[in-house]
Amino acid sequence: SPEPCSRVLLPKAALGLSLGGLSTVSPCSPAAPTPSDKELLAGGSYPQKNAEILSSQYGINVFLAGLLLMFAWAVHAVGIRKSDLLSYLITLMLIQLLWMLWYICRSYTQKRLIQEKDTHAGARWLKCGITLFAVITLILDSFKIGYFVGYADCLSATEGVFPVTHAVHTLLQVYFLWCHAKDIIQSFKTLERFGVIHSVFTNLLLWTNGVLTESKHQLNEHKERLITLGFGNISIELDDHHPHCNCSTTTLCSIFSQGIYYLYPFTIEYHILASTMLYVLWKNIGRRVEHHQQHKTPFKFHGITVGTILGLIVLTSTIAIVVVYLIKIGRSKVKSELALIMFYIYAITVLTLMCMAGIVALLIYRLEERSLDESKNPARKLDADLLVGTASGSWLLSWGSILAIICAQAHPTYTWYNLPYSILVIIEKYVQNLFIIESVHREQETADDIKTIRIVTVSTESTLSLAPSYNEIYNGTTDVDNGDVPYIFNGSISLQEGSRDGGFEDDKSKASSSVAPASRSILKNIAAFLFLCNLSLWIPPAFGCRPEYDNGLEEIVFSLEPWIIIVNLAMPFSIFYCMHSAASLFEVNCKT
Amino acid sequence: SPEPCSRVLLPKAALGLSLGGLSTVSPCSPAAPTPSDKELLAGGSYPQKNAEILSSQYGINVFLAGLLLMFAWAVHAVGIRKSDLLSYLITLMLIQLLWMLWYICRSYTQKRLIQEKDTHAGARWLKCGITLFAVITLILDSFKIGYFVGYADCLSATEGVFPVTHAVHTLLQVYFLWCHAKDIIQSFKTLERFGVIHSVFTNLLLWTNGVLTESKHQLNEHKERLITLGFGNISIELDDHHPHCNCSTTTLCSIFSQGIYYLYPFTIEYHILASTMLYVLWKNIGRRVEHHQQHKTPFKFHGITVGTILGLIVLTSTIAIVVVYLIKIGRSKVKSELALIMFYIYAITVLTLMCMAGIVALLIYRLEERSLDESKNPARKLDADLLVGTASGSWLLSWGSILAIICAQAHPTYTWYNLPYSILVIIEKYVQNLFIIESVHREQETADDIKTIRIVTVSTESTLSLAPSYNEIYNGTTDVDNGDVPYIFNGSISLQEGSRDGGFEDDKSKASSSVAPASRSILKNIAAFLFLCNLSLWIPPAFGCRPEYDNGLEEIVFSLEPWIIIVNLAMPFSIFYCMHSAASLFEVNCKT
Repeated sequence: SPEPCSRVLLPKAALGLSLGGLSTVSPCSPAAPTPSDKELLAGGSYPQKNAEILSSQYGINVFLAGLLLMFAWAVHAVGIRKSDLLSYLITLMLIQLLWMLWYICRSYTQKRLIQEKDTHAGARWLKCGITLFAVITLILDSFKIGYFVGYADCLSATEGVFPVTHAVHTLLQVYFLWCHAKDIIQSFKTLERFGVIHSVFTNLLLWTNGVLTESKHQLNEHKERLITLGFGNISIELDDHHPHCNCSTTTLCSIFSQGIYYLYPFTIEYHILASTMLYVLWKNIGRRVEHHQQHKTPFKFHGITVGTILGLIVLTSTIAIVVVYLIKIGRSKVKSELALIMFYIYAITVLTLMCMAGIVALLIYRLEERSLDESKNPARKLDADLLVGTASGSWLLSWGSILAIICAQAHPTYTWYNLPYSILVIIEKYVQNLFIIESVHREQETADDIKTIRIVTVSTESTLSLAPSYNEIYNGTTDVDNGDVPYIFNGSISLQEGSRDGGFEDDKSKASSSVAPASRSILKNIAAFLFLCNLSLWIPPAFGCRPEYDNGLEEIVFSLEPWIIIVNLAMPFSIFYCMHSAASLFEVNCKT
Repeated sequence: SPEPCSRVLLPKAALGLSLGGLSTVSPCSPAAPTPSDKELLAGGSYPQKNAEILSSQYGINVFLAGLLLMFAWAVHAVGIRKSDLLSYLITLMLIQLLWMLWYICRSYTQKRLIQEKDTHAGARWLKCGITLFAVITLILDSFKIGYFVGYADCLSATEGVFPVTHAVHTLLQVYFLWCHAKDIIQSFKTLERFGVIHSVFTNLLLWTNGVLTESKHQLNEHKERLITLGFGNISIELDDHHPHCNCSTTTLCSIFSQGIYYLYPFTIEYHILASTMLYVLWKNIGRRVEHHQQHKTPFKFHGITVGTILGLIVLTSTIAIVVVYLIKIGRSKVKSELALIMFYIYAITVLTLMCMAGIVALLIYRLEERSLDESKNPARKLDADLLVGTASGSWLLSWGSILAIICAQAHPTYTWYNLPYSILVIIEKYVQNLFIIESVHREQETADDIKTIRIVTVSTESTLSLAPSYNEIYNGTTDVDNGDVPYIFNGSISLQEGSRDGGFEDDKSKASSSVAPASRSILKNIAAFLFLCNLSLWIPPAFGCRPEYDNGLEEIVFSLEPWIIIVNLAMPFSIFYCMHSAASLFEVNCKT
């Protein structure tokens, strides 16, 4: 029966490779290897391993040079001006622009070269998210251009060229990501690798630049607050604050300069998202993927009312709390303390709810066992690594606070609230990561799966000695691959099939499917609730509500400068974590 | 013909899984799934993904808390004494000791549980290396105990408890690594995961502690030199230098305190090696590996005379240069400049030779195409990542120097030598990484391979329609795996087979095997030469020959404190890179 052959869309190349010289005996092998297959058999994958290392080392060096330039500028190194840094960034962006134009042109003229797509990469919500952030980034760029026009007399030309280049770069990059984020590049791989890795690290540098500018601004704000609170003894010097000439239209300039700093968080998110999407593109170069039928998982509002309502309550009250906090903090000592206590109590409540939701979700998973999807998936692996990696930012800050509370000699009342808050931050991230990573690794139960199992079962029973070879071929057993990625096809199906045929586990799987509707509804609500909570957690740090500074305790223990270093290192990751976990939870919600 | 069945040692579990219910038709499947297989089919791999994330998050938190404690101590935070830091480290070591004892006892009583071994992990040279470093670490610990006895009046008890605990910890850990580094743990996985990850991060923290102590010492030395050179205007304060009481036996104490700092580089290496070995053990938990016949690759001195002699010349002259450098530097301005010029000219020569050797080796690889070994191998992947990751340390320093030279306003003659030196450091690491990573990924050509190809070819020709299924099964096509590691078996063999049967490539492979002996000898010599050169490059930074400080240029541009931060961050990685690349090159030498 040749039927499974047409049903399961095994890529020709993979079949050609694994069956090798057996094409005459195997009933559904392709007629003959295509030219690209020949290339592969002749060791075509060989220079690609080199290209991978060559390009990644190139990217790291570009990044390190940029980092040092930024560091030198930040510490006011002799002979390094802001224009040097901006020139470097402009050069990198122009190179990326040229490469993207070349790639887009080539992909139009030679459509046949890019046939394969990674269905997991470049999800729609990611593209929509990046477009939203890009639009705000364009507004920021226009503000910067306006600011430059206002202060044109005393700003170097690069300060005007930079936002213009950045705007063009943003426009083209978003277009590029919309059209090509799913590409699996199979030709001219070396040049592509260099281009993509260049883009990844250009975006990372632009991200670092954004973080640095934002940190400098936050630091200035904090110092201004310190003056108000009466810490006059700290040597306060506002850094890179205003140009040394007057703006031609003062009100406009002040709006621009205020607006720029409120828009920065979005630009920062935009660049980190762009670089992760480009990184997945880079990982996919030269890879062979299974032609999975993509499970369409549209977002449905139906059935998550409770979670959404609770989440929206949290979201609105967070906005209210942040507004009150920003109004009260720094006005006087008493007002600041009240604002801090209010913030901590509120945050403790929200974090406790989030922890409980996460634990309930994990318990449901323990009751309802399902096999894990172990297939190769660079986008998912990157997501999981990013979750754990960026959570480290929050953990570092929390451990800093805990250490400060333990070691401090004087404990004003409001500082005690910091202890449960910090501990809850650690636990919440811990539980939430477990929940998200387990969710995205769980097998999706679809009608498709069940059909496959039936077909395979029938074929096992009806056909004779030839059957095993078909089953071997269709159910997850082709591995020789040209790229550096092992080739795995629908491994889970054969596992499920094995358990059915083996005759055990039947009761258990029946039981779990009967539990499903109720628990699935709970899980969807939890995901929706956590999604909105993470958006809420993102608001305070992104908009300058920073109890880590205002609290004062850590500053006394670590002293100001070291604590600023820690916060400025950890905070960008912490902010990114909230965004990223929200995005992941949205995906979980769609998948559940 | 059941012959391939016995020849290729496919693990029973993998066969049981992939064949599932087909055991009655397949002629060489196992009789019935063993109990452990049943567990796997019933979703036994499920809690393991959780255990992985649970344990890694635990480890990261232990590490972050320790890092912050260390940071707080380094910046003289209020209320944090050295004894707090040491108590934390002692606690971690004791927990690890208990876990290791439990593990060793259990593995004796229940031998059958740990049957599988990863032949790639815990290579013999690695074990020997770690033993050597451990012995020196024990000497260091005894010095520290002696130092504590001398200053017992004014040192806290933890300063005495720490080296004692550390010595016991070192002894047991080396024993543990000798006996269990290759283990692939399959039972009680959650507890094992926690124990191993705890050990990994305990070693990393001890490494960080070593690096920090060493950096403080280097900084003190550098400040003393600055005083000699007449930079009196920098506020110089020697940090954590001597206890505040007199030693009971002054000469002994001075020997101990001098000796301690010369032995630190070895302890640092010991801990990083231990943590990488433990990390590989952690990655291997719950994994299923192919029962490869291990290719014995003993080290042979024969045939690498030229490379060894050249390398030994480099090594001895490096020692001479370092001795002269250390004698001259800091004595007077003129002597310091001469020492710097001497060091740079020498380093430029050596680096040029190394670059040329690396490029020649890569060209030989380009001429002599061979397929890459794409099989899963956590030890090798970690090695490659560590090479690129730690090279970043050197690159960061080099980019810093290049930036300083470009931006500096005054250029004394000796600073110009810094530019080619820095550029060569970047290129040399770049080329060397390419060479090493390509070398360890190349397929080993052995008699075994050729035999396999013949057997398979014969079976293709002689057997009829059943053949494809056998070939599918034996030549690399079992993928359903319980662990998180895709299962790949001898992928390369089937690739080679494909090309033979396909009828092309025959001439090329014949040609390449005739070139082999000559080029292999050149490659072996290059590996030997680079091995000794990397050992040479390790000596100057490890023993306090630091032109990055003595040069003065970077200090002027970045100003002292920021540059110290950069050097102290990057230098440990740079030093580790030399060690690690030497170890990898030794392996390359054995394999080629």
